[in-house]
Amino acid sequence: MDISRPRGTRDFLFAEMRNRKEVENVLRRTFETYGYHEIKTPIFEDLKLFTVKSGEEVVNQIYHFTDKGGRELALRPELTAPVARLYMNEMQREPKPIKMYYFGSCFRYERPQAGRFRQFWQFGCELIGGRSPLAEAEVITLAAESLRRLGLEGFEVHVGHLGILRGILGRENIGDELQDRIMGIIDKGDVDELESCLDGVEISPESRDLLMNLIGTHGGPEVLNDVRGLLEGYPESLSALDEFAELVDTLEHFGLEDYHVNLGIARGLDYYTGAVFEIYVPRLGAQRQICGGGTYNLVETFGGERVESTGFAFGFDRLMNALEMDEGDMRMVDVFVIPIHESTLPEAIRITQEIRSVGIAADMDLAGRKLRKALSHADHIGARFVVLTGERDLHEGKVTLRDMEDASQEAVDRTEIVDRLKKICCE
Amino acid sequence: MDISRPRGTRDFLFAEMRNRKEVENVLRRTFETYGYHEIKTPIFEDLKLFTVKSGEEVVNQIYHFTDKGGRELALRPELTAPVARLYMNEMQREPKPIKMYYFGSCFRYERPQAGRFRQFWQFGCELIGGRSPLAEAEVITLAAESLRRLGLEGFEVHVGHLGILRGILGRENIGDELQDRIMGIIDKGDVDELESCLDGVEISPESRDLLMNLIGTHGGPEVLNDVRGLLEGYPESLSALDEFAELVDTLEHFGLEDYHVNLGIARGLDYYTGAVFEIYVPRLGAQRQICGGGTYNLVETFGGERVESTGFAFGFDRLMNALEMDEGDMRMVDVFVIPIHESTLPEAIRITQEIRSVGIAADMDLAGRKLRKALSHADHIGARFVVLTGERDLHEGKVTLRDMEDASQEAVDRTEIVDRLKKICCE
Repeated sequence: MDISRPRGTRDFLFAEMRNRKEVENVLRRTFETYGYHEIKTPIFEDLKLFTVKSGEEVVNQIYHFTDKGGRELALRPELTAPVARLYMNEMQREPKPIKMYYFGSCFRYERPQAGRFRQFWQFGCELIGGRSPLAEAEVITLAAESLRRLGLEGFEVHVGHLGILRGILGRENIGDELQDRIMGIIDKGDVDELESCLDGVEISPESRDLLMNLIGTHGGPEVLNDVRGLLEGYPESLSALDEFAELVDTLEHFGLEDYHVNLGIARGLDYYTGAVFEIYVPRLGAQRQICGGGTYNLVETFGGERVESTGFAFGFDRLMNALEMDEGDMRMVDVFVIPIHESTLPEAIRITQEIRSVGIAADMDLAGRKLRKALSHADHIGARFVVLTGERDLHEGKVTLRDMEDASQEAVDRTEIVDRLKKICCE
Repeated sequence: MDISRPRGTRDFLFAEMRNRKEVENVLRRTFETYGYHEIKTPIFEDLKLFTVKSGEEVVNQIYHFTDKGGRELALRPELTAPVARLYMNEMQREPKPIKMYYFGSCFRYERPQAGRFRQFWQFGCELIGGRSPLAEAEVITLAAESLRRLGLEGFEVHVGHLGILRGILGRENIGDELQDRIMGIIDKGDVDELESCLDGVEISPESRDLLMNLIGTHGGPEVLNDVRGLLEGYPESLSALDEFAELVDTLEHFGLEDYHVNLGIARGLDYYTGAVFEIYVPRLGAQRQICGGGTYNLVETFGGERVESTGFAFGFDRLMNALEMDEGDMRMVDVFVIPIHESTLPEAIRITQEIRSVGIAADMDLAGRKLRKALSHADHIGARFVVLTGERDLHEGKVTLRDMEDASQEAVDRTEIVDRLKKICCE
């Protein structure tokens, strides 16, 4: 019988898991320093939760199924909607703002391709009920600070504001649904598709030119002044621009200096409303976006009270790619205990247990190997030290301590071996 | 629109997540001290993986669905089969033994009832290629040691051996499939169902009496001697008994003394072959079993080479129930910064960022509250200290540090506030 892993999924073995957990732990610590705490939602949700506002591309790729009770369930394609659902179900009455983070896997059914998987991980946060632009600036700073603490090099933070583009579309009386479609095309960055879409839309040549001009606009904070003149006659866009300018000032107070103003950011999900940002690692090519977020109002969409929320998520798998961590050698344990003679097995077990009891990772030969093979196994699992129990040694109250680096050996008192290991392993 | 959580699933909020992570971390540390390292497999697998040997009850409750490519996929109902699949796909050539642990969620479709959920978590390990009974004794000790380190009180470790019962059924020439069914009924502990099942089976009255007698047998290690006489004429059962006796000796070397020999343990999954064990917390009633494991040979079932494996899993949710941890108050941050005047906002932001940069969890008022309300929020999120920035204070190079426990306040030099907090928060 040939049973293999489903297409587009992965197994994570020891070294990769160790690296992923190291990154996970740095992110946890950083988020907690900013006052966020972890929540967890189910792997599957009511399908409706995602069909309302998650955008066409997401909905088309959802894994969904009918359970035995006839309910339409979906493996979650993203985590913002579940978190908004959790907030509505359980936290609406809590004092605001509420700061939560999550780390979990999401699912999409798409053609497997390099760097894209059917089960993928997101590490993200939501700040519910904060005052923009203060909340937005803190959230963007947290994303950048996380990457700095991870030692990631060459990332670019791009910040934009959906209100500017939507203000132009709104002024042309373009309905919400069509606006969402246009924003979706802008998000994909496909200029040809955008042009041909706009060909079928009633829009003045001036507004159309302005739109095409703005989506290509990025640079430093001075960009905001440059475009101000172009937005005369688009009052909603101007008020979004004012908000954006306040965000830029606040980012400075947070100490974030190295970022790009980018008016072409549209975000693929339909529920964003205000400031948006994305982080790119250009050397990753097509998979260069490792983070996306912004301000949205999903709770109201779901029928709750209006509450401003800002959040973002790291694409954890892409982040791992970007970090290019060495898988290196894996040290499975610090100490390996080998009973040279079968008769010393009980004492070898006791020694192993004593070493473990002081918190040192230890293993013993569970396979009944000859000495040479057992030493080679100790080497394979990366043990720094080996403890050998021989009949005569034990009789004299001794064991042999072997340093695997230089193969040096010495006799150590049986009663002192644990203290000795504690000293040399915890140096 | 009313969107609620799917039935039988849970959201985990801050305090519960904190407790779960605390337990998770103790388990990780304990398992790693024993030389285990973490792996991760996908949430869904080929349905076939679970229909081969997982037992009827498990198969009936699987969430399965057909993907757009026509493949039958299943949300994993347990983790031993996926780990065996991972081993076959990726680790067959690694030197043995291989020690891996996992923590992940599993799924079963069943009527929701107290303490049983449709998404539930398992924390477990597999030792692949170890020599029984040495490997078995280590694995059982690890399970008990984990619970001891968690401070769980009143748990009972029950150890048995499937070979004893199977030896009797084999001697009566009862086929594998029927044996699996009988063992399944024994696992459920339903004596009436067992009697009526045996009524339809060709089995000698002596063997039947012996079987009924053994499944009710438990006590200390002396039980093994008591039953030896009864097993004359059942050579396979006797050889299993010898193995069991060796396991009991080895457990003593590992320092595990407080356990029950229980010949009625049958385990629900069909792939177990030798020693088995379960851990109960009697005060949990119907949900009293928090751990189960044993020796199995799943890899051969899947078409790989024969390799002895021993493993177990904690039912993580039941374990959390058993631990009855206090949800208590949640300290979200150590320090909360409040800009008394709007004009001091930029400096309040800088102070917050400086505090965070030394690793202290800090938050600032993101909602623009009046002082009294901001203080009440600081209290709500459990902040130990509040830093107040007033216009006049800052002008004189000072900020106010407030101790939330006794509401005492003092002026501190702006340049010294971070060092001061470092001293009092890290005490």
